[in-house]
Formats: sequence, C-alpha cells, structure tokens
Amino acid sequence: MYGTLEMAERVSNKQVILNNYVSGFPKESDMSMASNTIELKVPKDDSNAVLLKNLYLSCDPYMRPRMKKLEGSYVESFKPGSPICGLGVGKVLDSGHEGFKKGDLVWGMTGWEEYSLVTAPESLFKIQHTDVPLSYYTGILGMPGMTAYAGFYEVCSPKVGEYVFVSAASGAVGQLVGQFAKLMGCYVVGSAGSKDKVDFLKNKFGFDDAFNYKEEEDLNAALKRYFPEGIDIYFENVGGKMLDAVLLNMRLRGRIAVCGMISQYNLDKPEGVCNLMNLIPQRIRMEAFLVSDYYHLYPKYLEMIIPYIKEEKVVYVEDTAEGLENAPAALVGLFSGRNFGKQVVAVARE
Amino acid sequence: MYGTLEMAERVSNKQVILNNYVSGFPKESDMSMASNTIELKVPKDDSNAVLLKNLYLSCDPYMRPRMKKLEGSYVESFKPGSPICGLGVGKVLDSGHEGFKKGDLVWGMTGWEEYSLVTAPESLFKIQHTDVPLSYYTGILGMPGMTAYAGFYEVCSPKVGEYVFVSAASGAVGQLVGQFAKLMGCYVVGSAGSKDKVDFLKNKFGFDDAFNYKEEEDLNAALKRYFPEGIDIYFENVGGKMLDAVLLNMRLRGRIAVCGMISQYNLDKPEGVCNLMNLIPQRIRMEAFLVSDYYHLYPKYLEMIIPYIKEEKVVYVEDTAEGLENAPAALVGLFSGRNFGKQVVAVARE
Repeated sequence: MYGTLEMAERVSNKQVILNNYVSGFPKESDMSMASNTIELKVPKDDSNAVLLKNLYLSCDPYMRPRMKKLEGSYVESFKPGSPICGLGVGKVLDSGHEGFKKGDLVWGMTGWEEYSLVTAPESLFKIQHTDVPLSYYTGILGMPGMTAYAGFYEVCSPKVGEYVFVSAASGAVGQLVGQFAKLMGCYVVGSAGSKDKVDFLKNKFGFDDAFNYKEEEDLNAALKRYFPEGIDIYFENVGGKMLDAVLLNMRLRGRIAVCGMISQYNLDKPEGVCNLMNLIPQRIRMEAFLVSDYYHLYPKYLEMIIPYIKEEKVVYVEDTAEGLENAPAALVGLFSGRNFGKQVVAVARE
Repeated sequence: MYGTLEMAERVSNKQVILNNYVSGFPKESDMSMASNTIELKVPKDDSNAVLLKNLYLSCDPYMRPRMKKLEGSYVESFKPGSPICGLGVGKVLDSGHEGFKKGDLVWGMTGWEEYSLVTAPESLFKIQHTDVPLSYYTGILGMPGMTAYAGFYEVCSPKVGEYVFVSAASGAVGQLVGQFAKLMGCYVVGSAGSKDKVDFLKNKFGFDDAFNYKEEEDLNAALKRYFPEGIDIYFENVGGKMLDAVLLNMRLRGRIAVCGMISQYNLDKPEGVCNLMNLIPQRIRMEAFLVSDYYHLYPKYLEMIIPYIKEEKVVYVEDTAEGLENAPAALVGLFSGRNFGKQVVAVARE
C-alpha cells in the first residue's frame, strides 16, 4: 500500500461464516461470526466491481438448500469457511461500474457481512423509490414480492370468485399472495403455524379464513371444512403432507403453483406424496416456477405495488433482527417458523 | 307380447357380470358369465334408444377404478351384479334415435354383453371410415388414439428435437405417443415390461431406444443411461416409482403429461412420490388431462391418422381375445401387462 497517493480507508468487516455443509435442521452453531478488514474502495484492477455497505439482509427459504452440497442445481452451494450470501439492500460506497455511483441504493445478491465487494453488479437492481422503507426491498419490493406476483398472476391464472389456498401464508410470499387474491375477488384461506399468525392472516391481511396446521390432526378434514366446494388454486409453499391433503380437495381444472416446499428442505429423504392420482380426474395443472424467469415484469410490478402500499391496500409485515450477530438465529428460525412475517436482518440503518 | 302384429326376435344374451367391488389386483373370479334374453328391438316407450350388436370390446386401464366403490369421481362405479360396461364397436340393429339407423356402425360406451340397449346414444360416434379394421375404433381410431393425440400435441407442447420418454410404451396409448413423437422429430425412448415388448418398440414402432423396467434395479440410473441430456417430455402412464425416477431426470422447463398411473390402480394405498421438489429448479409443468375434454378435435385427428394408417407411417398392434368368455381374463391381464399391444375382445366379427 506504500506509495499510493490516495490511501483508502481500511475498516473491520464482520461476517457470518458457514462452518460446514449442513444436514437436518440448520443450527446457529452451523455458522460463526468472524471479522476481517476491507478497503472501502473498489480495487483498481477490478473496473466493474461495486463496493457496498450492507443495510438489510434477507432470510429466505431457498437458502437452506445452499447450505448443503449441491450438484447441478440452479443455485450454488455456500462455501464452507466463507461468508453466506443472500439478497440484501445496500448503499454504494464506491463503484467501478458506469451503471452505479457512490450513494446509490441497490438491492440484490450480496454477502452476509458489513461491507461487500460485488464483482458482477449487473445483477443488482437500483432502488428508485425511496419513500417506502428500504427494508421492503428484501421483501414486498424485492424477490419475495416478485415471486408472489409472478406466481399468482402468471402461473395460477386466477379468476374472480375462485377458491384460493395459500400455505405458509404469513411468510414473505404468502401474505402477499393472499392479498393479491383478495384484491382480485377470490375467496382466500391461509395456513400458518401459530394462533397469532392465524389471527394476523384474518385480521390484518384480510384472508377470508385461516387455520393453524399444527393443530389439525387431519389436514384433509381441515381443508374440507374450509373449502366445502374445493380448491381452485393452491399456492404451494410447503410440500409434503399439506400437498397430499390438498390433492384430495382440488376442484375441476385447478392449478397448483409450486413456489417452494419448505417442510421438506431439512429432511434427508423427502416425504412421499401419495395422492398424485387425483390430478387426473380433476385435470390439475401443477406448475413449478422460479422468480428469476419473471424479472422482466419487475417495472410493471412496481407500478402496481407502490400505490397499493401507499394507499394501504396491501399491508406488509416484517420481523426484523437487529445486527449481523443475530443473523444466524434469524435464518435458523425461518425453518421452525419462529419468524412472524418476512424475516429481515438490519445490519446498519444507513 | 300377445296381440302385437310384429313379433320381435328374442335371443339369448351372454354377459360379463361384476360379482363384487374389487380390492387389490382384479381376478377373473371377480367376474362371472351370465345369460339373459333380449328382444332385438328398441322398446316402443324408449324412443331415443339404440339396440347394438357388440362386435369389439375395449379393455382399458381406467376400468380398474370403476371396479371399486367410487365417490365423487368423474366415472361411476360398475354395479355389482350387473354387466361391466366399457367402450366398444357395435352395429345398430334397431334405432329409436333419428341420428342412427339399422346397419350403422358405431363406437362408444356399451355393455360387456352380446347385445346392448344404449339409452343415451348421443354419446356414440358413427363410424364413417370402414376401409380400416373395425376393431381399430377401440384403439387407434377411438379413445386411446384421441388420448395419445390430445396428450402429446395439446398437453406436452412438443418441439422438434426434444427428448421424450413414454412409459407403458407398448400399450394402446404409448405406442402411438412414441410414433407421434418420432413423426415430429423428437428422440423417443419407451419402457415396457418384457423383452419382446422392448424389441417391438425398437423394431416395429420405431422408438430410438427402449428398456424393460422390470430388469432395472435402479430406474434413475436407467433413465440417466437412456437420457444423458435429460428428459424434456414425459408421457406418464404408470406413476409410482417410475415417476419418482423421472423427476430426477427432467430438463429445464420440461413437461409431464399425466395420462394415467396404472401401477397404482390396484394398491390400497398409492406409493409415495418423493422427488416433487425437483419440479422447482427445473420449472416443470405437470399437467393431467382427460380425453373427454378433447373430442372436439376428433375430426381433425381422423384427418391426420387415417392417411398415416393407410400409408403405414403409423403402425398399430392389437392383442385380440376371441369371444366374450375370454373378456374377464383379457381385462385382468391388462394389470399384469400380459397384453401385447392394445387389448381387444372380439365378441362377433359382424
């Protein structure tokens, strides 16, 4: 460093490290806090990179598969010994890329650390609307929001008056799917894992009804109770036993949008689903999707959702963990349903 | 009857009776032969009915669920103590319906007996082309043909050069799907349950390759061998373990047309399918269909298929049981794969 005229500030950089590949339910001890130092400048030989100060980090179910050794998957495994990465909101401190300048706010893939050097910033979204909470870009205005939007409007082919069931309905995606369905004029029931969440679904998010799946011995009977006419659209977030019960309750030409199967992510061997035969008499379409195929609709989505947020036609609940130190517990909590709404980690407020 | 000027002929009418609801694999002893008598005239008070002499009866997998007590299904249970019913080809002996006259050849739902009074003949199709074997109207020119046509062209959205896998590939539907896929320029592999069937798939039906699933200990490994690039389209006829293995081998944006799941029809509890999570990264569409939704395409299908048959661009193999007495064994044989090609029962040659 001697001899450079301009001395960049070198600061300590706390990180969340994945210790090893994880099997079963992830534990806080699968991760550890570490610290290195980082120069708050883009290296001169990396003309395209962007240096971010991370403000908010997102805890998302898809991160669980990345904690194990994956081969030929659409996502890469996290690297044991290195920081976890995920979606987040950050502020540009220095930029080698013409598309970004110091002070820009962005969201996209970053590291679980205080500062990140993003070497392929093309994948970052520049934040244009700052009159909404910035943390929303990890949720309703980010990937989970786009997931709900694309999954519901593009994959489910919803029609006014249809019967819609959403599992994991108080999560980042589920709460939005339910509200989109209500705005369209559907009848919507959600399932969640606690009484408080169920109350929220009914009283805050405006679901027509909701139930606590943990208190139902017979999910088939529960669904028959909430959907005596059957289900037109199932927004699938959990998989396993719930999917099996839903298959017994689908209506003619129903649609199942497969967004995720969080109940299966920590199992060494996934549960068997026995009722797929029921797809046939009801002519069900079961379609899986990834949000990454739909980002061309993001501007259109923002046009719809920002007024909804401002007019409070759509409400949005976050569960915020304060400080990077609390990030491992926040991520782990996602898989036992400890979070109440979208799980965010606030690393820095600005 | 005394006093009528015109005395109708009254003849004996052999029938195949379902003794009782069936559980597990159906056995010949689940059915019995009986005989009553029937007047070969439409009753005067049933102005719409048609009296058929049954020529060919069709053995189809969907008949198995009808042998048990069904509730809320798209098909009705057979009635214990009554003749089985199914699709067949018949000749009109008398008609009270203006759409049909004596001598017409028809195909559609009829009884497993020598003569049937069809009280709702609107569902019968009049046979226009008689320069092909009449029995074909139980198969390539009837419901199985339309199933293959609708399932492949309408549900699978096939493209030139795609990799297509067909299970139960030597059956009535499978043999046609494979040939349609070849005509479209796809790469096609089929599975079947004997060496002879596999040879037929390769040498007679023109599949690119084929294998005997009974000789494969690891279906996933078998599929990886036959589809090193993965599968774009799976035409699903069997369900269970085969579906589970296919889910591990689907390509990006693959499609699974769910036509049937014959391996599951005789089980009290269907097998669990564990690999549905794989739908997500590959964005698979799994769509079930019933041929009954596609009969509006039947004239278009005949326009395509009849020249193919005459020019021998499509070949078609039937397994014919002679005489109604052999119908129970023929139907039962379907579920152990004893048939070689489409299983037909020849009740009378004219």
